[in-house]
Amino acid sequence: MEYSIGLDFGTESVRAVIASTLSGEVAGSEISAYKHGVIEDRLPVKNSIRLASDFALQHPRDYIESMKIAVRGAIKNSNVEVDRIKSIGIDFTACTILPIGKDSNPLCAGSKYKDRPHAYVKLWKHHAAQPEADEINALAAERKEEFIRWYGGLCSSEWMFPKALQVLREDRKCYDAATEFIEGGDYIVRWLTGSKSRNATAAAYKAFFVAELGGYPSAKFLKALDPKFENFAREKLSAGLGASGTPAGTLTKEAARALGLSRETVVSHATIDAHAGVPGLGICSKSEMAIIMGTSGCHMMMSDSPVLFDGFAGLAKDGILLGYHGYESGQSGMGDVLDFVAEKYRGEGRGARDESDAHGALSTAVRDYLPGQSGCVALDWHSGCRSVLMNASLTGAVVGLTLKTSLADLYHAHMEAIAFGTRAIVRSYVNAGIPVKKIFACGGLPEKNPVLMQIFADVLGTPIYVSSAANLCALGAAMFGAAAYRVSEQGEGSREQEILYRTIRRMAPKIDRTIRPNKKNAKVYDELYEIYLRLHDHFGRGDDTMKRLNKFRNC
Amino acid sequence: MEYSIGLDFGTESVRAVIASTLSGEVAGSEISAYKHGVIEDRLPVKNSIRLASDFALQHPRDYIESMKIAVRGAIKNSNVEVDRIKSIGIDFTACTILPIGKDSNPLCAGSKYKDRPHAYVKLWKHHAAQPEADEINALAAERKEEFIRWYGGLCSSEWMFPKALQVLREDRKCYDAATEFIEGGDYIVRWLTGSKSRNATAAAYKAFFVAELGGYPSAKFLKALDPKFENFAREKLSAGLGASGTPAGTLTKEAARALGLSRETVVSHATIDAHAGVPGLGICSKSEMAIIMGTSGCHMMMSDSPVLFDGFAGLAKDGILLGYHGYESGQSGMGDVLDFVAEKYRGEGRGARDESDAHGALSTAVRDYLPGQSGCVALDWHSGCRSVLMNASLTGAVVGLTLKTSLADLYHAHMEAIAFGTRAIVRSYVNAGIPVKKIFACGGLPEKNPVLMQIFADVLGTPIYVSSAANLCALGAAMFGAAAYRVSEQGEGSREQEILYRTIRRMAPKIDRTIRPNKKNAKVYDELYEIYLRLHDHFGRGDDTMKRLNKFRNC
Repeated sequence: MEYSIGLDFGTESVRAVIASTLSGEVAGSEISAYKHGVIEDRLPVKNSIRLASDFALQHPRDYIESMKIAVRGAIKNSNVEVDRIKSIGIDFTACTILPIGKDSNPLCAGSKYKDRPHAYVKLWKHHAAQPEADEINALAAERKEEFIRWYGGLCSSEWMFPKALQVLREDRKCYDAATEFIEGGDYIVRWLTGSKSRNATAAAYKAFFVAELGGYPSAKFLKALDPKFENFAREKLSAGLGASGTPAGTLTKEAARALGLSRETVVSHATIDAHAGVPGLGICSKSEMAIIMGTSGCHMMMSDSPVLFDGFAGLAKDGILLGYHGYESGQSGMGDVLDFVAEKYRGEGRGARDESDAHGALSTAVRDYLPGQSGCVALDWHSGCRSVLMNASLTGAVVGLTLKTSLADLYHAHMEAIAFGTRAIVRSYVNAGIPVKKIFACGGLPEKNPVLMQIFADVLGTPIYVSSAANLCALGAAMFGAAAYRVSEQGEGSREQEILYRTIRRMAPKIDRTIRPNKKNAKVYDELYEIYLRLHDHFGRGDDTMKRLNKFRNC
Repeated sequence: MEYSIGLDFGTESVRAVIASTLSGEVAGSEISAYKHGVIEDRLPVKNSIRLASDFALQHPRDYIESMKIAVRGAIKNSNVEVDRIKSIGIDFTACTILPIGKDSNPLCAGSKYKDRPHAYVKLWKHHAAQPEADEINALAAERKEEFIRWYGGLCSSEWMFPKALQVLREDRKCYDAATEFIEGGDYIVRWLTGSKSRNATAAAYKAFFVAELGGYPSAKFLKALDPKFENFAREKLSAGLGASGTPAGTLTKEAARALGLSRETVVSHATIDAHAGVPGLGICSKSEMAIIMGTSGCHMMMSDSPVLFDGFAGLAKDGILLGYHGYESGQSGMGDVLDFVAEKYRGEGRGARDESDAHGALSTAVRDYLPGQSGCVALDWHSGCRSVLMNASLTGAVVGLTLKTSLADLYHAHMEAIAFGTRAIVRSYVNAGIPVKKIFACGGLPEKNPVLMQIFADVLGTPIYVSSAANLCALGAAMFGAAAYRVSEQGEGSREQEILYRTIRRMAPKIDRTIRPNKKNAKVYDELYEIYLRLHDHFGRGDDTMKRLNKFRNC
């Protein structure tokens, strides 16, 4: 029996699992929280200045230290002999980036830059680069840049280019001192193996690398953004790319010692955390949609060919699994839209009751609701619309209020709205000629909110296959590790794609639950969806009320 | 010095004021709550059955008993010599009706009918006659009845005809035993004076009496509603009509003794409670709008000629004050729309904090908000739209939600929505060629919510003259009493209209507060109102989303 380690680097902690490469069975696992967590207030140094709002940083040393603890803990829990562990796969939050120096050490690690916020890791949810994202969007639109079409026409403030541009603008010294800007997952691979290659997935989805267009955006475009930014891609994103499931290298002496593993352990190229969920759910073919349902929603699909239809958020060949074009769509609001209602129920932070209690009470209250029973229909754009309409200036709405409308009614209407939002995304694929034959879901929501999942099945009119395994992404990462090991065993010219798919099929976990649609409800939802769609199109395509209101909003 | 008594019959109690006919100064007052209050559960008799939902009844004996207590108490408090009290004026909630027998006694007073709900008073908010109102609306529309145009095309379930038709349908014996159906105000006048005439105001606004069309709806129309209803108007609404401010008679021996007043005391024809607020505010000319702001809103205006424009709720010559055409518009939601938000803040009846506390906390929170600062705009149709669009199937809406939208934001947006709703009503008058030059407000809201009143001034872009006197309607009633006395003194042929206006001017109270618009805010509100109006027209005139959603609502 051979084993692979999957490392799932989340926002607060890293999880390690040790999985059998034969069955996918998890022999042991361990979680280790980052010492500094998310740094939003002050840097962990003496006399640190207060960070500007919307900053969300991390300390890269935390990743290494927590990784050591998690891996050694998982090995211990598993009772697996170390020799049987052949590989490591990594998934990481994205876009989470850091500047590194010539020695590949993080800038913030040296005493010279440790007091400078821009020397630290910018976590995915660092939103302070919004002005830079706005600039990129305006310029790309103005210049009709081809690359932006591969991102649904919109650059998020969370991505590589706005974040790096912010460093250039706000801390020129840090920017110049950085030999590279690198994803967290690639930093781990580099620390483990010394290999300088990056993962192709994050480059494609978060850093404008479009293989079909020859790579990163042109120096001309970057120069037009800022003359000093002209050589950013050429100089600071120079390393080669490798696909998840292919080997990046084996452990350095130092890394092997630190983790207690053999130096021959093969390390796969990293991937984005949500993307590891796709093999983690056992998906290895096109036409199957994976939905990661948490605070927000992430929809992933694969297809044989690229179609630049309106409304996806990212598209890359080999972007999810080798051999397919991987599509990503994002629903900005899911769990947080329900939190929006639950918060009112709790008394907006006045601590009347805790959060899970509020969700529990509200979903119990609506458990036996019929479709549309609240009399309200909501638009789920409380933080904009990230797919289909790709418009960040859109906002939420509720229509159908009466004096009797309760918070339970609003909760139900918002659950339906989230499901309608996903149906609109599914429809955008189908309309583009990309069939969606089977829908899988995982993440925090399916676990916590069974009422919501039934509404999803009813609204989508199709069974939802749910896995509630907490280690699903880590398992997906372990699969990539196992495939990379097999590829390295078989040497160059091996059929990487075939190996990967065989590995996924072998290691695929059982699906816990199948939520089947209630046919009667599904029929009613066809009608209600039509009402939703009319609102959706009215406010999303015709009327500019929401945009006009933003002008008055006090943000 | 002479005095007039104003009797203001409200939902829970009657208020008596004794006012100087020279200055309007109130010498004394007293309130007396009705013993049985609003009867919604069971009749106050042994072994009563449970009332159906939406029933709201009262016991007519309560009116008499409370009136005696209030009048005697007010006299005592005032120290006014009884001989100086020359008149009584009455205002009453409407449409509040009861069936009476041959002796003018309420049916429910005799032992024969005391166990039958339909023998009791149907209070204005008795909403159980909705099916009958629906029937009347459908038939009037189908037959293109001219009379319904004088009511904005819509009959409310609160009015005389649906309520009487409900009695016919549900308790034929009661219906047949009733020699008349009579308004509460007219019942009091009859009890006081023995006079059989009714007040023209309630007949016009609540019972389809259109002088210009020769009176009540035709027997043909009533027969088409129900063959047994054919003679309803002819038989059971047969008494003549008299205007408020003209004498109905003097006190009977019994009444004089019961109230401790002289038999010569002149009693004016009654009026509707809200209408008494118009003279109560000191209004006695056209182009001045009175808004009674409470749970719902009532807008009253006077004009020289009748214009059947789209969107008023009632129109009658002499309907408010003698000599003018009186218009009424209603805004279904005002205080209750704010309650809708405050309720969520309180925790929907879980008693986290009390109601006034919730309104206080929320209006304090938004006190310094700029126009539109919530980023949201709401439609104030939580209980339908009773003016301008005249559509009961419309519902409320909020557009512009984000994850940060708080209940305070929603409260502010709803305050703005109420003010926008009033602006739409004002605009409907102006567009019809009826200028609105000055706006007065009274009622519970101006008293309790100064933040709302400032928003009203800013949204309407004009000063709002506010009286917060609790006895404003009672004072208006006393004015009608005083005018009736003067008319009876001067005998037939006296210039009733001139006398009434002179009386109002003399007795008009001081306006407590003038709320002046903030010019900067008013300018911003011009823009926001335009956004409101677009939503208003979209959902109110074009799109039928709200109506479609009602089909799914669980009421």
